[in-house]
Amino acid sequence: MVDVSAKPPTARRAVAEAFVAVNPETLSLVIDGRSPKGDVMSVAELAGVMGGKRTSELIPLCHPIGLTDLVVNVTPDRTAGGLRIRAEAATIGPTGVEMEALTAASVAALTVYDMVKGVERGVEIRSVHLVSKSGGQSGDWHRSADRAGGGDRPPATQPVARRPGDRVAGRIRKKA
Amino acid sequence: MVDVSAKPPTARRAVAEAFVAVNPETLSLVIDGRSPKGDVMSVAELAGVMGGKRTSELIPLCHPIGLTDLVVNVTPDRTAGGLRIRAEAATIGPTGVEMEALTAASVAALTVYDMVKGVERGVEIRSVHLVSKSGGQSGDWHRSADRAGGGDRPPATQPVARRPGDRVAGRIRKKA
Amino acid sequence: MVDVSAKPPTARRAVAEAFVAVNPETLSLVIDGRSPKGDVMSVAELAGVMGGKRTSELIPLCHPIGLTDLVVNVTPDRTAGGLRIRAEAATIGPTGVEMEALTAASVAALTVYDMVKGVERGVEIRSVHLVSKSGGQSGDWHRSADRAGGGDRPPATQPVARRPGDRVAGRIRKKA
Amino acid sequence: MVDVSAKPPTARRAVAEAFVAVNPETLSLVIDGRSPKGDVMSVAELAGVMGGKRTSELIPLCHPIGLTDLVVNVTPDRTAGGLRIRAEAATIGPTGVEMEALTAASVAALTVYDMVKGVERGVEIRSVHLVSKSGGQSGDWHRSADRAGGGDRPPATQPVARRPGDRVAGRIRKKA
Amino acid sequence: MVDVSAKPPTARRAVAEAFVAVNPETLSLVIDGRSPKGDVMSVAELAGVMGGKRTSELIPLCHPIGLTDLVVNVTPDRTAGGLRIRAEAATIGPTGVEMEALTAASVAALTVYDMVKGVERGVEIRSVHLVSKSGGQSGDWHRSADRAGGGDRPPATQPVARRPGDRVAGRIRKKA
Amino acid sequence: MVDVSAKPPTARRAVAEAFVAVNPETLSLVIDGRSPKGDVMSVAELAGVMGGKRTSELIPLCHPIGLTDLVVNVTPDRTAGGLRIRAEAATIGPTGVEMEALTAASVAALTVYDMVKGVERGVEIRSVHLVSKSGGQSGDWHRSADRAGGGDRPPATQPVARRPGDRVAGRIRKKA
Repeated sequence: MVDVSAKPPTARRAVAEAFVAVNPETLSLVIDGRSPKGDVMSVAELAGVMGGKRTSELIPLCHPIGLTDLVVNVTPDRTAGGLRIRAEAATIGPTGVEMEALTAASVAALTVYDMVKGVERGVEIRSVHLVSKSGGQSGDWHRSADRAGGGDRPPATQPVARRPGDRVAGRIRKKA
Repeated sequence: MVDVSAKPPTARRAVAEAFVAVNPETLSLVIDGRSPKGDVMSVAELAGVMGGKRTSELIPLCHPIGLTDLVVNVTPDRTAGGLRIRAEAATIGPTGVEMEALTAASVAALTVYDMVKGVERGVEIRSVHLVSKSGGQSGDWHRSADRAGGGDRPPATQPVARRPGDRVAGRIRKKA
Repeated sequence: MVDVSAKPPTARRAVAEAFVAVNPETLSLVIDGRSPKGDVMSVAELAGVMGGKRTSELIPLCHPIGLTDLVVNVTPDRTAGGLRIRAEAATIGPTGVEMEALTAASVAALTVYDMVKGVERGVEIRSVHLVSKSGGQSGDWHRSADRAGGGDRPPATQPVARRPGDRVAGRIRKKA
Repeated sequence: MVDVSAKPPTARRAVAEAFVAVNPETLSLVIDGRSPKGDVMSVAELAGVMGGKRTSELIPLCHPIGLTDLVVNVTPDRTAGGLRIRAEAATIGPTGVEMEALTAASVAALTVYDMVKGVERGVEIRSVHLVSKSGGQSGDWHRSADRAGGGDRPPATQPVARRPGDRVAGRIRKKA
Repeated sequence: MVDVSAKPPTARRAVAEAFVAVNPETLSLVIDGRSPKGDVMSVAELAGVMGGKRTSELIPLCHPIGLTDLVVNVTPDRTAGGLRIRAEAATIGPTGVEMEALTAASVAALTVYDMVKGVERGVEIRSVHLVSKSGGQSGDWHRSADRAGGGDRPPATQPVARRPGDRVAGRIRKKA
Repeated sequence: MVDVSAKPPTARRAVAEAFVAVNPETLSLVIDGRSPKGDVMSVAELAGVMGGKRTSELIPLCHPIGLTDLVVNVTPDRTAGGLRIRAEAATIGPTGVEMEALTAASVAALTVYDMVKGVERGVEIRSVHLVSKSGGQSGDWHRSADRAGGGDRPPATQPVARRPGDRVAGRIRKKA
């Protein structure tokens, strides 16, 4: 573990993304809420939040820290052929929350897999990466547009963070 | 959670893979053991095993089950430009261990990220997927060669499972 | 911990209930999905399942056991003035799952509190109790009708277990 | 999870109560320390403290925070016919500890159930509620006397917080 | 993790011991229940049981298994100058429970330290070791008398396992 | 739990040691990396770090706190006949990290046991103790030389803290 005893606590924030490639039929099941194990997107969002809180238990050299924010959104994308996952974490502390955001996104992606594996076992989690981070000694960092548009995953559109209760857009409204 | 009370316990096994794309300089650091946070591959292997054991805590609808085997291998691949992760899990039980293998591979991949993020923040976990599973009502399943060779990740060669103590090949021998 | 080494594994099942009393305005928010922190009932159901899986970590003398089933339902009841929680757990093992069902119900109830405490801090978890258990040396047990109809909580109607994906009745259908 | 990144850390404290209704014979066993699984009250108190520390793992949208205090007392009440549980939690942070106090009280109550279920399976956890909270933006809150004296649970007398080592009053002295 | 998939489940049991050396004044405080943080022996016993249940989370290559028995006893020994800890674990499974017994003993010993460190910071956990194991392919094993009587710890007398509720001897009776 | 609500956060640090006595053949296996379960020292170091992070879950009355540093070193000592373990923890907080250092050392020692128990079941964890602590109301504390040189364990030489990546000395260099 890196010694951060001498680092002052500062406001830190990180955003990570993942993409889960599923076939069109599976995606329709997910969007329509007809998946055999339940509401895939809301279960995955919640699992992501809960998984992200346990980052320091999973990643050996991560510091145990408090979190002031952690939100995970799962959004279907028919064009790209799958589900986009976006996780955002924040803290006031001596070390960053990149791993918390990445872990939350990964656990949400794994949960999507678990919820649909009964209908499509070949689902692939395709691109788990950091989008941006702010705060701390190393300053701000944004994934370059060039890299983000690389051949191995569809171009990302970064939705604004949505809380579970925000019903103006996204998954929950789709059921109305 | 799916009710598996009436399913008889059978031998089950699952293999999952992940690929972590890093740039050539980072890969050299990892292979040479010069990464600032320590021996990336062995730390990631151990984190994968420990993370896989906690699958039912992370994935909401996974059954808590015992495991009879769980092994994670991290292997550098200069041609593909990154680190291949392979996780294999087994149990004797009424439900499968696909999620255990996938979670182990994901936690190992996240740990690689954590160990090298100080030198390359843009590292990407490119493909987490199930390779095969055996046992249980739904029988055996192997990822089709066609899909495995898809455009978004390099063709996989599946190494035989290696235990941490096997020194005939892989990471540890590289130090000799 | 009671020594169960000599007990043969048998099929065991337990059902527990809890009742969360909220005022009519809060109940309407919950039913309509307008609670500030999100979809109260589905978050509570999932938290109950995840909490129930960790029973042996929370209850000092509980045996760590595998579970073959664990389902939690949260159902609004305007007449009784609150939310009914029902948790059902099952295993094949040498010891029962009463505590798993009770813990799942309690964690679901606590989660309801957390989700609505911003609008009503005086919410009360009014009755957490075992409804029935089957299997094991001590045989079957059902809470007597007399006791169940006691003065401190409204009479319980026990809904059949509903899986998250069952859309024929209950919460999710209410959104349609 | 509510974003509390912009909230200043302040001293916060919360008190919760629960009541576990048992029949007179069971209560005598508990008071006399003749319960088959051991010293019910001290095991429940400890379980409550340990459970309360894990609140953010159990309640999906709770922030992981440090705690500066957490104490649980279990007190027999023959008149009311059961065991009163009182949990008090404190932190210096950007968010409150109501859920920590409520979770500690609930886990203590569940532990009482586990410890006596061999002699009385119909035990009921009757009233889990917040008593008071202080600190934070929303200010102080006390459960109104009116509500506290409601028909569904016996009137509460709030004992002053007792540490496990305080022997001037309460459970441990009873053994002398 | 060693692959135990092909091993049949058999009855297994293991006993471990630890010794915590404290000075006579501290030992008197512990025996008399006057330790500032509470009843040292019962808290340590409970912590040992709870810690032993989490062995597979702590020890990287331990298999997650169910336990059919786990009991921890802490006994004061004025002649030897400290507290003896004895932990016994059992399972029906394909792998042994030595680590569960050793982990339970260690966590109990650490808890003793925590409970008395305010009065004696130099307390030493002097000898954590396996006493015996039975079951499994490698058969029975008993620590040889020769080794047990080695110079670095006082000769051990192995008390019969005592459950928390057994009041015929030990800690709890001392309060009567 | 001791109420530390009124204590100001200060920089705190603690160092603990443990000694694992193994026979010369086992020690050679460990040093040469020929142990059947893998690289004993690096697995134990990592397990120690991960275990130390979970101290508040294991030790009932420990406060959950963040850590700014936690490092574990395992060093073979042929003269003393075993492996020395040294753990160092730090935080900025209202309470100390002695238990975190001691727990990290203990979990590392238990992991050594687990890794070599296939070749030597009688391994003994011989001396787990605090070496020093700094910060907080009670000020600095160092284990006295007299006590450290007591008869029950070999005299300790305290190596400077080494991070996993430091290759100038110690275990990893031995493989070159």
